[in-house]
Amino acid sequence: MTFSIKECADFLLQNDHFAILCHQNPDGDTLGSGYALCRALRNMGKKANVLCHNEIPQKFFFLKEGLQPQDFAVKTVVSVDVASGQLLGESLLPYLGRIDLAIDHHGTHDLKADKECVDPQAAANCEIIYLILCHMGINITREIANCLYTGISTDTGCFCYSNVTIRTHRIAADLLELSCDHYQINHEMFESKTPSMLLMEKLALENLQYDCGGRIALMAITSDMMAKTGISETELDFITSLPKKIKGVDIGVVLKQRGEKEFKVSLRTSEAVDASEICRQFGGGGHKRAAGCSVSGSKEQAAELLLPALRKALEKNND
Amino acid sequence: MTFSIKECADFLLQNDHFAILCHQNPDGDTLGSGYALCRALRNMGKKANVLCHNEIPQKFFFLKEGLQPQDFAVKTVVSVDVASGQLLGESLLPYLGRIDLAIDHHGTHDLKADKECVDPQAAANCEIIYLILCHMGINITREIANCLYTGISTDTGCFCYSNVTIRTHRIAADLLELSCDHYQINHEMFESKTPSMLLMEKLALENLQYDCGGRIALMAITSDMMAKTGISETELDFITSLPKKIKGVDIGVVLKQRGEKEFKVSLRTSEAVDASEICRQFGGGGHKRAAGCSVSGSKEQAAELLLPALRKALEKNND
Repeated sequence: MTFSIKECADFLLQNDHFAILCHQNPDGDTLGSGYALCRALRNMGKKANVLCHNEIPQKFFFLKEGLQPQDFAVKTVVSVDVASGQLLGESLLPYLGRIDLAIDHHGTHDLKADKECVDPQAAANCEIIYLILCHMGINITREIANCLYTGISTDTGCFCYSNVTIRTHRIAADLLELSCDHYQINHEMFESKTPSMLLMEKLALENLQYDCGGRIALMAITSDMMAKTGISETELDFITSLPKKIKGVDIGVVLKQRGEKEFKVSLRTSEAVDASEICRQFGGGGHKRAAGCSVSGSKEQAAELLLPALRKALEKNND
Repeated sequence: MTFSIKECADFLLQNDHFAILCHQNPDGDTLGSGYALCRALRNMGKKANVLCHNEIPQKFFFLKEGLQPQDFAVKTVVSVDVASGQLLGESLLPYLGRIDLAIDHHGTHDLKADKECVDPQAAANCEIIYLILCHMGINITREIANCLYTGISTDTGCFCYSNVTIRTHRIAADLLELSCDHYQINHEMFESKTPSMLLMEKLALENLQYDCGGRIALMAITSDMMAKTGISETELDFITSLPKKIKGVDIGVVLKQRGEKEFKVSLRTSEAVDASEICRQFGGGGHKRAAGCSVSGSKEQAAELLLPALRKALEKNND
């Protein structure tokens, strides 16, 4: 059943003992949504916990500051920013089939839930949570505003991406009016690179190679480089987006070594190229502008395997 | 005389034959202000030109697209985003003492003008221009909205810096409502790095050095590196801010070679350190968080000269 913002608000007001489910490998939007909702419900005297398959990355610790896990029997299950069942991660799979309300902004949403409130026009799921909290008529504290701002800012690359709408900026203005710590949050999310991340950037740039007259840019992250820099998997995100950011590049490729002879491929493309179509040829998949797959072999072999398909995709686009 | 937004609007409506002065080494805010105002005045049938001491960097060409210089005798002089007389640059100095209206958002504004509208609370000068255009009751076209959005986006690091206010986001929402091309503008301003810029980043990272347990980060840009990458001076901005972005760094230093034995120093600091105080010791100056000076010697000598003063500034802060 499809739920409106108002119906979501009524549902949350009428129920209690909430388990709020975030997606695995959590980002600022799923955690911001979860903790904003959890704080709002607890402030009303209700019981609520946020659940996530993975540990929460340190840079998001402030979202849950002051919140201790509560002990109660779950009566209501709400998912936030979870597009599909498998994205819950193994430890939350038992909740599948038990979800009362799914709040999401993914166009590809296919998580089974009793009631669904899905708005693909929302740049971030936190936009929807904000509208629901407004309808609930609750007091949006600075802590809640910080959670919501974090989700909106991270899912829009700080208001930089094409998903930003008039509403996104209006909600951001409201959150600043509610005294959210926008500058500190943005600084923490976007401005801070560790020395290890910079070392990785240097090593990655050293093996950056171009193809097709600069329309393809490819770099590899080997296990040696991971060991040398001591960087964690979640800190690698900024590298994955780097080749595509180069002017004139239509296909940005990052190869990440997974085993002795296997590389995980991350593809980012311009509008000229369908990334998911290319990755499907190698048994992977994803979105049109961002997709992934795996290839076997050494770094050189992996590149040799991929490049013909990438060149072909560019040629096809030129026809 | 201090002018309100409404008085500025009336003044612009009542006058004609405008010279609009931008500051030298123009950025998105001074050019966005200038061209937004110029387009608005011309759309009313008035004569107006934007003047700048320097050539306009290519990435800002779209701001003036379709506008040809007009031939007329100047009757009204308006400056936009120009904080002081010397920032006009040599070729615009003849206008000093002839400025009818100065519109600015710098707290340090000391440009002499007949009327002044200065609002240091505005994150960008384009915020003030937007409010004035609204008061003038003119039609804000997409081209004008693009100029204003460019100024706001660039002066706030895409809504990331501490200068962003509730009003900034509300105006951004209005500009999106006016169909500004926010995504294309942000992509052009923030997402595009040329292969030469990435090569420079690699070379700069290769000589990155830390001091004081990682609280100081220093890198040098030599003439050799400039020649090797073929990068232009305006493309170097992203390097200047890089060392300060490293987690734990209180003082980020970039040395840019100017002659055989001279380096220009760019200092970026955290709240813990006063950059201008340090630069004054070397005959330079600037703001508390960003300042500059020049030092003589080789790259190594320049660093040796600076580091004791930097360490002392950090020690002072520890007291």
